[in-house]
Amino acid sequence: MVDLESLFKLNYGMYIISSIHQSRFNGCIVNTAFQVIPEPSMVAVSVNKENLTHEFITNSGLYSVSILAEDAAMKLIGKFGFRSGRDLDKFKDTPFKTGLTGTPVILQNTVGCVEIEVEKSVDVGTHTLFIGRVKECRVLDKEKYPMTYTYYRQVKHGKTPKSAATYIKEKRSQKG
Amino acid sequence: MVDLESLFKLNYGMYIISSIHQSRFNGCIVNTAFQVIPEPSMVAVSVNKENLTHEFITNSGLYSVSILAEDAAMKLIGKFGFRSGRDLDKFKDTPFKTGLTGTPVILQNTVGCVEIEVEKSVDVGTHTLFIGRVKECRVLDKEKYPMTYTYYRQVKHGKTPKSAATYIKEKRSQKG
Repeated sequence: MVDLESLFKLNYGMYIISSIHQSRFNGCIVNTAFQVIPEPSMVAVSVNKENLTHEFITNSGLYSVSILAEDAAMKLIGKFGFRSGRDLDKFKDTPFKTGLTGTPVILQNTVGCVEIEVEKSVDVGTHTLFIGRVKECRVLDKEKYPMTYTYYRQVKHGKTPKSAATYIKEKRSQKG
Repeated sequence: MVDLESLFKLNYGMYIISSIHQSRFNGCIVNTAFQVIPEPSMVAVSVNKENLTHEFITNSGLYSVSILAEDAAMKLIGKFGFRSGRDLDKFKDTPFKTGLTGTPVILQNTVGCVEIEVEKSVDVGTHTLFIGRVKECRVLDKEKYPMTYTYYRQVKHGKTPKSAATYIKEKRSQKG
């Protein structure tokens, strides 16, 4: 039996992955950002090929991970998670700074940020796994907790867009 | 500044990754198991090349992820996380069942399990990222919560072996 609910037992966070292309910024919400090796520190992230951010990362070879705080505003999550950068400039009213690598780092609603230079791109079907070296990382707020995906779903009653790596149709199980 | 503490703000779980080789089982603790695409469901895990489990997965092309519960016994974590399968049979006194793929699934101290057939192995230096298709997955205990890495460190006061993808020397920061 393939009971996809069990995949929700894996732990995820809530991150805004941002990149730059021809001095334009864009970003999207992703659950799957994780460290793959400790030294040198390398991080991987799975991004849907249809996202504009995917195009930006492919072109620049750079991305930043802004780690959302538990009390992050649903309005921010809505803008970055459910709207497309093809329709609006997501950074227009979002406080950010340009990081060491040139990628934008979100300063409010976040506990930390990591900037990555891509070393390997792995095609995994609908998504690409961008694996890269940590060039810069810092804690932005020591007092707040990072938001977990479980907290987002259970406490904030957040939804998941179809483009997410962790998207599962409601109450669906499939035969293996 | 590269403040490696910020990487701890990424959210991880606590998993036992197990595999089979010539009808022998072995497993180790890993923090970085995550879904990379939703359909078909694919999972990736980062395993240290020095671990015996790495050798088993490389040979069989199969692994299982047993998702640890928040109240999982530290004795179990000690056995799978800090001992080598070269020195002892970790499954000797561990309740498990052989899953659909032939890999062992741990039945106590867990909330769910996922069995994976490897499709891509990505060399990331000290570790290999094993990316594969979900062949079987099920919830083992609906009542319990999955253990997060943060919970393991802060509530259970657990330590991290040097072989872990998330290992960071205590209080160390490094220049980028």
